[in-house]
Amino acid sequence: MIVIVIGLGHIGGSIAISLKENGFAKTIIGCDTNLIHEQKALDNGLIDKVLDLSSAIKIADIIIVATPVNTLVRLLPKILHQLRDGQVVIDVGSTKREVVAATAGHPRRGQFIATHPMSGTEFSGPESAVLYQFDGKVTVFCDTIKSDANTINVATRMYRSLRMRIVEIDATSHDTHVAYISHISHIASFALAITVLEKEKDEHRIFELASSGFSSTVRLAKSAPETWIPIFEQNQENVLDVLDQYIHVLQDMRANLANQRFDKLRQQIAQANDIKRVLTG
Amino acid sequence: MIVIVIGLGHIGGSIAISLKENGFAKTIIGCDTNLIHEQKALDNGLIDKVLDLSSAIKIADIIIVATPVNTLVRLLPKILHQLRDGQVVIDVGSTKREVVAATAGHPRRGQFIATHPMSGTEFSGPESAVLYQFDGKVTVFCDTIKSDANTINVATRMYRSLRMRIVEIDATSHDTHVAYISHISHIASFALAITVLEKEKDEHRIFELASSGFSSTVRLAKSAPETWIPIFEQNQENVLDVLDQYIHVLQDMRANLANQRFDKLRQQIAQANDIKRVLTG
Repeated sequence: MIVIVIGLGHIGGSIAISLKENGFAKTIIGCDTNLIHEQKALDNGLIDKVLDLSSAIKIADIIIVATPVNTLVRLLPKILHQLRDGQVVIDVGSTKREVVAATAGHPRRGQFIATHPMSGTEFSGPESAVLYQFDGKVTVFCDTIKSDANTINVATRMYRSLRMRIVEIDATSHDTHVAYISHISHIASFALAITVLEKEKDEHRIFELASSGFSSTVRLAKSAPETWIPIFEQNQENVLDVLDQYIHVLQDMRANLANQRFDKLRQQIAQANDIKRVLTG
Repeated sequence: MIVIVIGLGHIGGSIAISLKENGFAKTIIGCDTNLIHEQKALDNGLIDKVLDLSSAIKIADIIIVATPVNTLVRLLPKILHQLRDGQVVIDVGSTKREVVAATAGHPRRGQFIATHPMSGTEFSGPESAVLYQFDGKVTVFCDTIKSDANTINVATRMYRSLRMRIVEIDATSHDTHVAYISHISHIASFALAITVLEKEKDEHRIFELASSGFSSTVRLAKSAPETWIPIFEQNQENVLDVLDQYIHVLQDMRANLANQRFDKLRQQIAQANDIKRVLTG
């Protein structure tokens, strides 16, 4: 298999090195608009070579698109235009509704499958690529009815080679679920970092007193705007909906604290504690 | 050294087993109002024996008080009343202003030192005790001017044996700093868990789609109300102050998203990203 990875960030880079290492790909070709990223991906052995996009598409069996989601929407129709029979295009973006819409009705739509490996971190760039990053995790396939049997088959084999579990969800539901389970966590964490940086004027105290609890809660605040602004833009409605609820819960907790309704605050904490049971399945 | 640990939860239990293991304590005696906790602490080898509080205080060299902070405030004056010369009392609570106030003016005040090892987790109870939990972390000493030289000396040797770094902060500043750096993280995380549990009616989807990012951000939401209600109660003013700022930042992000002011949202994320630099010192 000749695999192209377009976008050599954390997800693209991790897929590249993992598919190379596990033998699924014979050759991995990398493309990135950032020449430094291309060079780093080569230097770190994530990819075998760099080619320009059009030349790469000509020789590829599988084309993985791992760019920010605004670029995805722009790039996917162009890639589909250049396809030959038998080639497969897989995107790995964090939003799915607009990605699916951007490819709707294209004559080559069947050769494309919209997927989302649930495995981001706060790190970005090829230097953050991790071998076996995806081991045991879930990847979502969206609207598979619009993909050809061969496309689904190739994507399934690829993700199975990464030891991922596949879950099917329609694109619209996907975007709602990820707003709840991933996007709001990022907003909560960005806002926490901003708050602490604004309130705690003594930066050294943050460094000195930060426990692992604080570090854990602000971890996602290190995530790159280049990745997250397009996600929030594409999933605006769902993110606003869950963000409103988050602000509402905080205002409720605030009122309970201000009015010393500690029994109610205790009930809220007990409700929150239930996440332990839910996360362990 | 004979050391009593009162309150055999995560912090008390971890101190007990660590001081036993590193040889600082010859004998560790445990006291807890929860008999199951006492038995577990014995069974798990955190302590050598259980005694009632008064008998334990009679034979102790060091008395470590690791109860929730509401109990601390009630218990400390009673313990001071029973002291002989040379004994040292160390509390390890997460708030310090009310603890220091509760002991102010007591004839045995000099034998007490208010401390806060910055090393909690979301877990509680003796089963969550961890050997070497404190290795390389910071402990805060508050208002040491009110403690005798011997008391400071004993507490310093004890924390050094746990390989902790000691930082001195007055009790009032301590409570402000921890509201910023620890308490607001807990509120942010409790509220996130409640929000996700309320919005995402399909619990299995949470389990299925939760990435490590979500798990990290809601980690503190597993923390026990028995620990946290008294902390929020004692630090109400500081927590309300930083919580108001947090809600304000979230409302700002919400407005930028709703009005598609993505440049402003990008600036906010870039501001949040600065936490990476601050946390690495």
